[in-house]
Formats: sequence, C-alpha cells, structure tokens
Amino acid sequence: MIKQETETIAVDEKMREEKERLEQQIGFITEVDKVKNIFRQTYLAYGNRKENDAEHSWHLALSAVLLKEHMKEEVHLEKVMIMVLIHDLVEIDAGDTYAYDEAGAATKREREVKAADRIFGLLPEDQGRYFRALWDEFEEYETADAKYAHLLDNFQPLLLNDASEGKSWAEHGVHKSQVCKRNAHIRETSELVWEKMLEIMDKHVGKGNLNAD
Amino acid sequence: MIKQETETIAVDEKMREEKERLEQQIGFITEVDKVKNIFRQTYLAYGNRKENDAEHSWHLALSAVLLKEHMKEEVHLEKVMIMVLIHDLVEIDAGDTYAYDEAGAATKREREVKAADRIFGLLPEDQGRYFRALWDEFEEYETADAKYAHLLDNFQPLLLNDASEGKSWAEHGVHKSQVCKRNAHIRETSELVWEKMLEIMDKHVGKGNLNAD
Repeated sequence: MIKQETETIAVDEKMREEKERLEQQIGFITEVDKVKNIFRQTYLAYGNRKENDAEHSWHLALSAVLLKEHMKEEVHLEKVMIMVLIHDLVEIDAGDTYAYDEAGAATKREREVKAADRIFGLLPEDQGRYFRALWDEFEEYETADAKYAHLLDNFQPLLLNDASEGKSWAEHGVHKSQVCKRNAHIRETSELVWEKMLEIMDKHVGKGNLNAD
Repeated sequence: MIKQETETIAVDEKMREEKERLEQQIGFITEVDKVKNIFRQTYLAYGNRKENDAEHSWHLALSAVLLKEHMKEEVHLEKVMIMVLIHDLVEIDAGDTYAYDEAGAATKREREVKAADRIFGLLPEDQGRYFRALWDEFEEYETADAKYAHLLDNFQPLLLNDASEGKSWAEHGVHKSQVCKRNAHIRETSELVWEKMLEIMDKHVGKGNLNAD
C-alpha cells in the first residue's frame, strides 16, 4: 500500500516536471518568433524585399543537407543543422550587424553574449546549456562543424546576391576585397565552394555591382 | 605513363561531376527561395503580418529539437528536421491550401505531387530521391517520424494563434471541432502536447476567438 502510494507520488512528480518543461519550451518557441522580424541586408532571390533571420536560418539548414559532400572534413549534419537554426537568435536583442559595418562590429560581441544569456536561459536548463554550447562553438569558428556552419552562413547570401543582381553589394558600395576578407576561411573548408564564390564575385565585379580593388 | 594519364582523367572526371552536382544544388537552393513568398493564414506571435512557409519550416525544425522528449515513440531527429524543412516546398507551385478550405483540399494532392516531381527533380538524382521519399513519408502519415513532423506542423500554428489572440481562427470563423478533427492523431503521438492543445483551444473558445460546437 505504502509502496503504491510512493509510486503514485513519483509518477505525479514526473508528470509535473514534464509539464513544466513543456511550458518553458513553449515560452522559448514563442519568444524566438521575434527573429522573423529581424531583417538582414540581403535581398531575396525573387522579390523586392530583404530577408529575415528565420528565413535565412531555414535556408542554411536545408543547404546543410545538400552541400555536406563538398567539405574537406567530416561534419556532423544534425549538429550543424541545429547550429545554423539557432545562430542568429541573439539578434532578437542585439539586432543584425551588417557584415561590413565596422562600428557595429566593435560592440557586437558584448551585445550578443548578453542576449545569449537571456534567450537560451528561457529553456529547461539542460537544453539551454546545449544550445549555448552550440552557439559558442559557432562563434569560436574552430571545429569542422563550426567551419561548415560559417561556410553556409557566407555562401547563401552570396547566392542571393547573385540572384538579385548584386543589389545589396551595390547599395552598400562593397569591395571584392571586403567579401574575400570576410570569407578568408572558406577555402580551407571547401575548395570547390570557394572557387564558385570567386566566380560569382568576379561576375559582379564585371557587372559593376561589386567594386574591384 | 599511361597509368598516370588514366588517373589524371579519372580525377578530372570526378571534379567535373562534383562541379555539376554543386550547380544543380545551387539551382535548387535558389529556386526554393520562393517559399519565402508563400504566405500562410497564421499570424506571427508578434507583429501584424502573416507567416510564410520558410519561417514556419524554420520554427518546426527548431521545435523538433526541443519537443522530442514528449513523444510516445522513439523518433529520428535529423530525419524529422529534414522532413519539416522540406514539407512545404511543393507549395511553390501548388500554393498554400488553408487547413479548413474544403474546396482547395479536393485538388491539393494532385497539385502537390506534380510540384514534388518538378522541384525535387532539380537536385542530383540521389538527393532528389531522398527528399521525395521523405516528403512521401510525411504525406502518408504512418511512421513515428511522420507523426512527429505532423504534430509539429499542427502545434506550432496553435501556439502562434494563441500568442496572436486567435486572430486567424476568428477571421475564418473556425470551430473547435474542426481543429480537433484536423488534430485527431496528436493524442496517439503525445498525450501531453494534446492536453496542452485542448487547453489552448478551450481558452480561445472562452474568449470568443474559436467557435464552440
């Protein structure tokens, strides 16, 4: 009898905990809806508006499945997908810093770390810790998985820039050397993707959308 | 000497193939950018506009990581993530059919199959076949992975409806029984999520955003 009651209490406690976790997860899922309103500088391939962080992250996760085969090092697909799905969540608080905005870049790190503390802190502790570790790994840009995530993060806007006639580059007066500097590590990650990026850049230098140096 | 030449030819051929695959992948990645312009009937949690398919799919893939623990059956996370990332691509050609549009539902299947043939056909054959198999599995709604993907696809708009004061339900005069019918399989997939869905529905019946039956 006492054993049965103890078991019932244990089951109730387990259910209460599970419910509480679900509430925290719902709180996080609803909060991150806000990245759908964080707009980037890149234009969509089709259409006249700029892309938001949620769309961008969806595009990277999908591309991760397809482009894995071109990487020099083995990568862990599931992990990279999660990494790119969450990599821009900090912008909910910190905003989007354009790739070639040097003044913004100076304070970016501090703003983003504070945002990561708050946003990943909404989750059940173990899940928040896991996401935070993935975001840290992405930011540190050292592992093969982080390098692949960055390649995706850099290659996708280049493809959109290409499809939208280099509009974003032209608007910001971007130079080829700036794009090359930002993408300096791509060659180590995938020779083939780097060659394609160079080909796209040179095409837009030819068209006058990207400044030669 | 002849051996060396044969090897060089083999390497060239491999590089040519890899380049060709990358071109097909880029063609697909650029084409699917169009789902960012396919708008659903659900409103964002924050903000006054409707959600598009890319944002929706991003939200599902991210939620997949978090809610897995509440499922009755074991699921394969990476597979479910890919499934939800691609599940709405057919709407590029077939358009979005609102969950409670009965006339649209009658022709939906035919329109979507044709779209799947074209869109997944843009990829290298093996990758196109893989995505198509995942989309078929999702549509058949039989495996544990497909059930989990559908749970995500149904639960997320409910959370957005909740956060946006049931606006989409109110606009379309939706009845609770319609939502229950559409979500009939959720209980088998996760008791806890189903209870939460009922709780949200009842709250909005009370507020007059969802019609009682």
